[in-house]
Amino acid sequence: MPYFDTASAAPLHPVARQALQASLDEGWADPARLYREGRRARLLLDAAREAAAEAVGCRPDELVFTPSGTHAVHSGMAGVLAGRRRVGGHLVVSAVEHSSVLHAAEVHAAGGGRVEEVPVDRFGRVSPSSYGELLGHSTALACLQSANHEVGTVQPVAEVADVCAAAGVPLLVDAAQSLGWGPVSGNWSVLCASAHKWGGPAGVGLLAVRKGVRFAPQGPADERESGRSPGFVNLPAVVAAAASLRAVRAEAEAESARLRILVDRLRRRVARLVPDVEVVGHPDLRLPHLVTFSCLYVDGETLLHGLDRAGYSVSSGSSCTSSTLTPSHVLRAMGVLSEGNVRVSLPAGTTAAEVNGFLEVLPGLVAGVREQLGAVEAVMAVDPEAESLELDTLGLRCPQPVIELARAIGRVPVGGTVTVLSDDEVARLDIPAWCAMRGQVYVGEAPRPAGTAYTVRRAV
Amino acid sequence: MPYFDTASAAPLHPVARQALQASLDEGWADPARLYREGRRARLLLDAAREAAAEAVGCRPDELVFTPSGTHAVHSGMAGVLAGRRRVGGHLVVSAVEHSSVLHAAEVHAAGGGRVEEVPVDRFGRVSPSSYGELLGHSTALACLQSANHEVGTVQPVAEVADVCAAAGVPLLVDAAQSLGWGPVSGNWSVLCASAHKWGGPAGVGLLAVRKGVRFAPQGPADERESGRSPGFVNLPAVVAAAASLRAVRAEAEAESARLRILVDRLRRRVARLVPDVEVVGHPDLRLPHLVTFSCLYVDGETLLHGLDRAGYSVSSGSSCTSSTLTPSHVLRAMGVLSEGNVRVSLPAGTTAAEVNGFLEVLPGLVAGVREQLGAVEAVMAVDPEAESLELDTLGLRCPQPVIELARAIGRVPVGGTVTVLSDDEVARLDIPAWCAMRGQVYVGEAPRPAGTAYTVRRAV
Repeated sequence: MPYFDTASAAPLHPVARQALQASLDEGWADPARLYREGRRARLLLDAAREAAAEAVGCRPDELVFTPSGTHAVHSGMAGVLAGRRRVGGHLVVSAVEHSSVLHAAEVHAAGGGRVEEVPVDRFGRVSPSSYGELLGHSTALACLQSANHEVGTVQPVAEVADVCAAAGVPLLVDAAQSLGWGPVSGNWSVLCASAHKWGGPAGVGLLAVRKGVRFAPQGPADERESGRSPGFVNLPAVVAAAASLRAVRAEAEAESARLRILVDRLRRRVARLVPDVEVVGHPDLRLPHLVTFSCLYVDGETLLHGLDRAGYSVSSGSSCTSSTLTPSHVLRAMGVLSEGNVRVSLPAGTTAAEVNGFLEVLPGLVAGVREQLGAVEAVMAVDPEAESLELDTLGLRCPQPVIELARAIGRVPVGGTVTVLSDDEVARLDIPAWCAMRGQVYVGEAPRPAGTAYTVRRAV
Repeated sequence: MPYFDTASAAPLHPVARQALQASLDEGWADPARLYREGRRARLLLDAAREAAAEAVGCRPDELVFTPSGTHAVHSGMAGVLAGRRRVGGHLVVSAVEHSSVLHAAEVHAAGGGRVEEVPVDRFGRVSPSSYGELLGHSTALACLQSANHEVGTVQPVAEVADVCAAAGVPLLVDAAQSLGWGPVSGNWSVLCASAHKWGGPAGVGLLAVRKGVRFAPQGPADERESGRSPGFVNLPAVVAAAASLRAVRAEAEAESARLRILVDRLRRRVARLVPDVEVVGHPDLRLPHLVTFSCLYVDGETLLHGLDRAGYSVSSGSSCTSSTLTPSHVLRAMGVLSEGNVRVSLPAGTTAAEVNGFLEVLPGLVAGVREQLGAVEAVMAVDPEAESLELDTLGLRCPQPVIELARAIGRVPVGGTVTVLSDDEVARLDIPAWCAMRGQVYVGEAPRPAGTAYTVRRAV
């Protein structure tokens, strides 16, 4: 039963399990205490910190352990923003950061800070010059992920770090998706990561703050972890996190090469086997183990359930699989199709047979969902009904508005227009994406008393 | 090698270990995901929440898991203070709360809130009427521990909760030290606890917020754990925490009765075997497993090292064992001696032989430290030197100022005074405590250009 969602959480690495079990006996005491159990705990903590710092590429006294990657991001951003309050309240983040970064940015904005987002290209990549354009004298912090968690695109961290350094602005890197594959190169200032993404246990994040970065920990004082992460340190998990990071790094080169071949195969075969599919993310500058694609006329949740029944656990950025009913902000920022979205992220050890099995069931499942939804290709009528048509899809959810549009486009002549009235937030993203895939012209949107009207001109 | 510091951290309970290991295989996936690994994780999380809620005595949807007891306290206090901001910014805490509560109170005060401390008696106990006197129309929150972490005194939580309810003020209870022994009775509003205090794993706190309490989670948004605890949930540890809470509860009655006998023995024997010792905390209204005492003319750190070499791991609230060089705020609030302070907290399963062994080595170790410090009893001179003496102990650290005082008191006649000039913060607590133990009269203190002058009148 292949699990293909390692970007959400990786199964525990055998080394993590061993280290965790061993340190349950040795590492339960308070490392701040002077007696032997405390000293033993302190030794384990110091050794774990050294190992993790070596893997991150920083000094041990620059690194603290937090209860999660999310805590590392929240504490890291809050600490730098407060430490550089005198510089100003300007924060620059990429549009495709993890929600933990964007939610911390919202808090900063709610407190009077100014937040600007760096756009990405259609591959989900930022350009260093976009950072340069936004940085100013009042910029307290810039944030950039090392690689995107939804589409796998690798960001130009080193180049952006140089741009930031030239402007005197510290760069915080969310390395959650990439740290298991290798250190983050370049002159970053703050780095955050999460152990359960590389096969370490849950309950451990890393926060590295380079010496010289002004940092003022926020929240109630707590002397543990240099005052940067309150609460009793989860030592067995910390030991397991450090040991497994070292272990996955030792395997990273070979495993990365192996998985890259499997993902290349997925990228090629999905595009060939499934009609009307958009494989998203950068084809080359990407994580080795992750591929994302979107399927026109497909309800993401139904497809995920079908894949689950067939034995494949994958994730989705479609709106219908989220509690907010909005599509992934990453896909939105990239301007790509979000309906029928599937993210496949392969854990270490995935076999070619497992990937082939997935490729065998996928086309049939997609076809089944489309049939169920009545997603038939438009018949291009010889005798169009009218120059322009308007479709009332109010109340219909993704992918229905796009399916209705596809059905109706043949009922107007080339040069005629179809207007789709929709109150589904996703239409704003998926109707233009459909136009791009179908060679039709997206005219634009206009607000209506109920919903929004999206107009498409038939070009072919 | 007996470990007698379970109030800092308890060794892992066998049930916690079993549950942790079992759920490493079943509980690593994201419980928010729709596929089978996610559903399995969700089932484990729901079951753990039900078990923990039953042990706490609340509804499952009132309880969330946090990364530590400290996080539970910080989030719980911040959430209620923000949720009741319109009521006012008045916060009432006892003077002997855990540092996590006091540090959160400091943040509240720094943000413009008003914090008042409820005093305690010499046993470390608050009176419900003291809470009643402080509560007002602008009181947003009151906090009280279920039992004190340093001296074991049990607080009148149910009575204070009634006083708070009558005033319309929610009561937050820090139940970290007592939850393993039983549920907190009374009409509390918010409850916090920490799994590693009852033999659960590190990395898990509990935060229960009763329905109807206005609560506004602070910090960046995160939809996990009802929006009250950000970050990927540490599921194996959560499962182990819930399972071990249930297990220790099943053993609590018998183990409590057994340990109470051992602690009674410690209380009696320490007072008898060690000269000039003050056993602190309430003799009856106390935790079953914890006793604290302070030894006159003893350096706490030296005594702890001696006990450690003899095989006993204990803790201390003495200033010389803390990084801040101030004595425990709990002992200070109680007005009891802090020098040579030792806290003994017995883990489940402690044997009478282990306790007897401790009682065998303790008197000799205390005597050794006193000898090393030159702490000889004052010779009451027949022919006093002067009506008043002043001792310059600037630069000397606890317990030296008190030792100097004890040496000098015989050099003045009955009715004469000795003034001790000291820049050690502890003198403020320990000189009056010495007077109480020795039947001398503490006159008072006066600031000096360097340090403070503490004056004692010889009465016997």
